[in-house]
Amino acid sequence: MKQKTKPAVVLLSGGLDSATTLAMAMDAGFSCYALSFDYGQRSSAELNAAKKVAQAAGVQEHRILKIDLGQFGGSALTDHDIAVPQSEFAQDTDASSVDEIPITYVPARNTVFLSLALAWSEVLDARDIFVGVNAVDYSGYPDCRGEYIEAFQTMANLATKAGVEGNRLTVHAPLIDLTKDQIISAGSNLGVDYGLTVSCYAAEASGAACGQCDSCHIRKQGFVVAKIDDPTTYA
Amino acid sequence: MKQKTKPAVVLLSGGLDSATTLAMAMDAGFSCYALSFDYGQRSSAELNAAKKVAQAAGVQEHRILKIDLGQFGGSALTDHDIAVPQSEFAQDTDASSVDEIPITYVPARNTVFLSLALAWSEVLDARDIFVGVNAVDYSGYPDCRGEYIEAFQTMANLATKAGVEGNRLTVHAPLIDLTKDQIISAGSNLGVDYGLTVSCYAAEASGAACGQCDSCHIRKQGFVVAKIDDPTTYA
Repeated sequence: MKQKTKPAVVLLSGGLDSATTLAMAMDAGFSCYALSFDYGQRSSAELNAAKKVAQAAGVQEHRILKIDLGQFGGSALTDHDIAVPQSEFAQDTDASSVDEIPITYVPARNTVFLSLALAWSEVLDARDIFVGVNAVDYSGYPDCRGEYIEAFQTMANLATKAGVEGNRLTVHAPLIDLTKDQIISAGSNLGVDYGLTVSCYAAEASGAACGQCDSCHIRKQGFVVAKIDDPTTYA
Repeated sequence: MKQKTKPAVVLLSGGLDSATTLAMAMDAGFSCYALSFDYGQRSSAELNAAKKVAQAAGVQEHRILKIDLGQFGGSALTDHDIAVPQSEFAQDTDASSVDEIPITYVPARNTVFLSLALAWSEVLDARDIFVGVNAVDYSGYPDCRGEYIEAFQTMANLATKAGVEGNRLTVHAPLIDLTKDQIISAGSNLGVDYGLTVSCYAAEASGAACGQCDSCHIRKQGFVVAKIDDPTTYA
C-alpha cells in the first residue's frame, strides 16, 4: 500500500471525469480533500453522486461549499428560466475549436472553483490541486484548455504565501487530452464505480440520466468505444 | 456630465480603498456594478458601509454574494478562534517586501473575489473590473501586487468567451502604487465621503473603529499626511 501523506485538493462534481481524476490522485499517493459546490445547479443528483464517489474513494475529507452562482444568471445550468438544450450535441471534438460556446456554459465556473480550491489548499498547506477538465469533449469551453490551466497555475503561485516563498503549487489536469473512452478505461482500471456518477445535465433527483442531452450522448459513446458495460441508470 | 454606458464590475468592501476605487471608476465614465461579499467576516460594519458607499456613489447595482470562506479557516479575519492582532503594525511599507505575511491574511481572498467579479462581468458583458488592491500599505499580501493582478488578467482572458474572442478584459487596480494619503487626497477630490467607510479590523456593528489595529493606524496616518480632516468615528 502506498503511503498517503501529501495532501491534495480535488475538485469533485459527481460526474464521470472528476471521479476518474480523484481515483488518479489517490493512485498517485495523495491524501485527498474533495471539494464540491452547491452553486445553484438545478439537479441535486450531482451532489448526491459526489458524496457517494468521495466515500467510495476513501477521501480524507469532503466539503460542499454553497455559492449561488445562479444569482448572476447567464447559463442554462444555473438559470432556471433557460431550458437545457437537448439538440446541441456536436460531432466536433477538435480541441482547438472555440468558435461555438455551448449555452450550458456557466460564467467563469472553473476559475471560481479553482480559486476556492486554492483557498482550501492554502489552509491545508497542500501544493497540489486536481481538476477533471477535458479539452476533447468540451472544446467549446475556454476554461477547459491546457493554456488556461497553466495561466491559472502561474497566477496562483503569485497569489499565495507558499507560491511566493518558492513552494510552488501544481494544478493537475490529468484528463485534459484524453478522449471519453480513454478516461473510462483508465478509471475502470483504477476501480472507479461509474454507476455512482452522474453526467446528465437533466438528471432526476434519483440520479437517473435522461439519455438525450449532450453529456449523456458523450458518456454513452465513451462506454461503447471503451468496450466497457455502461452502468448508468437511464430514466 | 459624462456618458455612462460601459459597464464595469467594482469590488467594494466598504473600506476606504474600495470606495476610492469606485469613485475613480465612476469618474472614468463606467456604469458601475458593485460587488461585495458576505464571507464570514466577523464584523457586519463592513457590509453596512459597502451599502452606504454604493448608494452614495449611485451605482447601477450592488450585489452582496454570500460565500463562507470561514469554513476553510486559516485567518484572523474569518476564523473566530483567532484574536485579531492589535500590535502587528509595521513601519515597513516597501512594496517588494513579502517576507512577513500578516496573520490577518485570508486564504486566496483576492483570487476568489476577482473570480466572482469575472463571473458577473461575463454575464454583464463587462470588459472591465476594478479592484482597490494596494501594494504600499499591504506589502505582506502576495495578492496585492501588480504582477499578481497582471497574471490574473492573463488567466481571465483565457478563461472566458469574450477574452478568447479577442475582446480583452482589463483588471484595473488604480491604487496599486499609491500611498494612503495619496488615495485619500484623490478620493476627496472626487467627493468620496470617507465617513461612510470602515477600515477597522475590529469595527463595532455601528461602524465605530477601534483606533488601535493596523488598519486604523494606517488610515489615521493617511488623513494626517493628506492634511484632510479624519471623519472616522472611533469607539
